[in-house]
Amino acid sequence: MTAQGVFISFEGIDGSGKSTQARLLAEHLRGLGHQIVLTREPGGSPGAEEIRRLVLEGDPNRWSAETEILLFTAARRDHLERTITPALEAGKTVICDRFADSTRMYQGLSRGDLRAVVDKLHALMIKQEPDLTILIDMDPGTGLSRALSRGTGEERFESFGESLQQKMRQGFLDLAAEFNERFTTIDGNREIDVVASAVQQIVAERFP
Amino acid sequence: MTAQGVFISFEGIDGSGKSTQARLLAEHLRGLGHQIVLTREPGGSPGAEEIRRLVLEGDPNRWSAETEILLFTAARRDHLERTITPALEAGKTVICDRFADSTRMYQGLSRGDLRAVVDKLHALMIKQEPDLTILIDMDPGTGLSRALSRGTGEERFESFGESLQQKMRQGFLDLAAEFNERFTTIDGNREIDVVASAVQQIVAERFP
Repeated sequence: MTAQGVFISFEGIDGSGKSTQARLLAEHLRGLGHQIVLTREPGGSPGAEEIRRLVLEGDPNRWSAETEILLFTAARRDHLERTITPALEAGKTVICDRFADSTRMYQGLSRGDLRAVVDKLHALMIKQEPDLTILIDMDPGTGLSRALSRGTGEERFESFGESLQQKMRQGFLDLAAEFNERFTTIDGNREIDVVASAVQQIVAERFP
Repeated sequence: MTAQGVFISFEGIDGSGKSTQARLLAEHLRGLGHQIVLTREPGGSPGAEEIRRLVLEGDPNRWSAETEILLFTAARRDHLERTITPALEAGKTVICDRFADSTRMYQGLSRGDLRAVVDKLHALMIKQEPDLTILIDMDPGTGLSRALSRGTGEERFESFGESLQQKMRQGFLDLAAEFNERFTTIDGNREIDVVASAVQQIVAERFP
């Protein structure tokens, strides 16, 4: 029987560089001979990617915060069943760009005080947490201009502006304190390769 | 201020005639001068209809039972917010072809023992129950052949066969006993207009 794989998530505000860092960590670990599944949320499985499109495209107010939480939880359930759990059971390392902490933040905090609803849904339908969550902490102004310069057509959260980015940054730091056993916070206001080295070092220390 | 409207749902196995009876009741009550919103689940609002397509089209096993429950609950939340609640608050009568009882049955019973999950999600995200639920009870064999003869391309539940229809019929009768204050059971094995008269009589008695 293969040992259970390791589950690592990256979190941070839009434009913090977490997607780049997730990719760089995947490349680094593959170079060391590990089997890696690099994935993302919302999405990460064919069904969950369809739900992602339903949520992120169109008018930002087409869904209420509550409906959005249900859709993201449905996507996460599918992602877990079809991608994450099978990979972990095969002993692979899963690196995920955003996971449940992003729902705790974006749906739990930014669109109303719904953290309790998010937590109850998570406890009922998801349960899984990452073994390690790397928070890429970033100056909100820099993050916002980076995110907007991408122009992906999925700027609905970014469009809420810099004061929201400030609130989200603080919210992620609060989550890191709340779940301090699995969270590690890294200063993302540095060169990409400096941040990548810091990430590699943490992973090497945590999973020798 | 307008008095709160009345919320009536129709339930029953596929092919029981509940959609026809919901439509006939709506026509009857409109003829009496009532303001009626005739709607259905899954669906009933633009967003919920999109979720309906996501769930009902494609391979019947593309979603796990748990993901399906989350998607139906998301659709119901949107349907409530955008269609049902505004209509009830405007004093209209809402007639709905299927509501939460169908999820209790189809996801709670037919795809595994998930009734407890369905109930917890309902208590957390939906809460609303109809004022009156009319169960059109129907011989499972007759219901199945009627449903299959329609050929709507949404036969995924029907495709599970007559033994499932038997189980569903009994399940609906059990739900009617469990929620006996709001459920009324009508024998659907009769001519359409006889069933329609029985429905009208019950509604007239319940909401004089």
